Amino acid sequence: MHRTKVKVVQDALDANNTIARANRDDFDRHGVKVVNLMSAPGAGKTSLLERLLAEPTGELRIGVLEGDVHGSVDADRLAGLHVPVVQLNTDAGFGGECHLDANMVRSALPALPLHEIDLLVIENVGNLVCPAEFRVGEDARIMVSSVTEGEDKPLKYPLMFRACELVLINKIDLLAHIEFDLDRFLYHLDQVHPDVERMQVSARTGEGVDAFRQWMAKVGQRERALA
Amino acid sequence: MHRTKVKVVQDALDANNTIARANRDDFDRHGVKVVNLMSAPGAGKTSLLERLLAEPTGELRIGVLEGDVHGSVDADRLAGLHVPVVQLNTDAGFGGECHLDANMVRSALPALPLHEIDLLVIENVGNLVCPAEFRVGEDARIMVSSVTEGEDKPLKYPLMFRACELVLINKIDLLAHIEFDLDRFLYHLDQVHPDVERMQVSARTGEGVDAFRQWMAKVGQRERALA
Repeated sequence: MHRTKVKVVQDALDANNTIARANRDDFDRHGVKVVNLMSAPGAGKTSLLERLLAEPTGELRIGVLEGDVHGSVDADRLAGLHVPVVQLNTDAGFGGECHLDANMVRSALPALPLHEIDLLVIENVGNLVCPAEFRVGEDARIMVSSVTEGEDKPLKYPLMFRACELVLINKIDLLAHIEFDLDRFLYHLDQVHPDVERMQVSARTGEGVDAFRQWMAKVGQRERALA
Repeated sequence: MHRTKVKVVQDALDANNTIARANRDDFDRHGVKVVNLMSAPGAGKTSLLERLLAEPTGELRIGVLEGDVHGSVDADRLAGLHVPVVQLNTDAGFGGECHLDANMVRSALPALPLHEIDLLVIENVGNLVCPAEFRVGEDARIMVSSVTEGEDKPLKYPLMFRACELVLINKIDLLAHIEFDLDRFLYHLDQVHPDVERMQVSARTGEGVDAFRQWMAKVGQRERALA
């Protein structure tokens, strides 16, 4: 019984990787770099994007694919920022998929003006488990962890903290008002993903967002070599 | 393709419900009421349990089943509170299941001293999507939403906010330090689950925890009739 389930999941992940490679080929053909932005619900992914998009990122033309179980709250928030935004909902069928997979992203490609953008940000469904297991054809993965979530999150969701090239520690404007031991968080982070790049940011005050923007600029400019 | 997937998921949910009923029969046989506690990662489920368990809940003997992808951080936190605590990890096999299902809970039953408790609290994996789809044999479901997660969460994760009998609005001690419009959150909540019971609480200051404790006492005492 358990072995059958393992087989089914393995097949599903293999199928996903095949489609992720097809997405990748399409992105390459258009010279588009892609970032997969992941976090728990309410960690501030959309607020960080609002801050990021409020100023230019070098010469990069950025587009956004918003993944949500339901609704278009996030896409609506970004709609005024004069960048192409496409909303992708995962709620067809059941209660909704808890992550984006390569096939869902593939289904959104026709709606994306790939010839008009250099960098696509895919905002994943808020979830610290499954998004880490499904590549969608991205160049880099960013994980946003809010200080309000506590220091233990790397220990409890190790795969997510391993499956990223950058950890954004968000809501640092609240550090004075909560019991969050940043050193302890970083110690836990290093236990599961030693030396992963990390930045302290506040989507609310804008602190650290310039450094984040520079990081994004580098991803947008670099040659397709990694991952 | 999509229809096949629908069928597979439907079968899985049917199988889950069958096992949930078996759990339920076991709980009934021991006269144990069960609460399924759900939230996003870092919303404060464990902190609320620490507060709850710090004082007696009427005459109820409470036990806890801690669900996590990985590790025993939460069970360790509760270990000093002199209640039976069992840790259940979901990470066998892949990156880990993003929710508890009835079969996982069933596998933990032998470790639980059901004859010594009246109320079992099952702390689910932090996730706002899949836990809502899998009953585990519980009497009631509580969903914890932290004010730091934003007012839009009911709109973005409607199934989760529908699939519960109580919404705990946690971290209200931070209201003075963030932009969170409580009226707006409640308006969104009423859009997806009108009149669901809701309480404002702070695991940090203890505000509202007495009302939560009274609610739990009622669940522990009531006759098996609902759900």
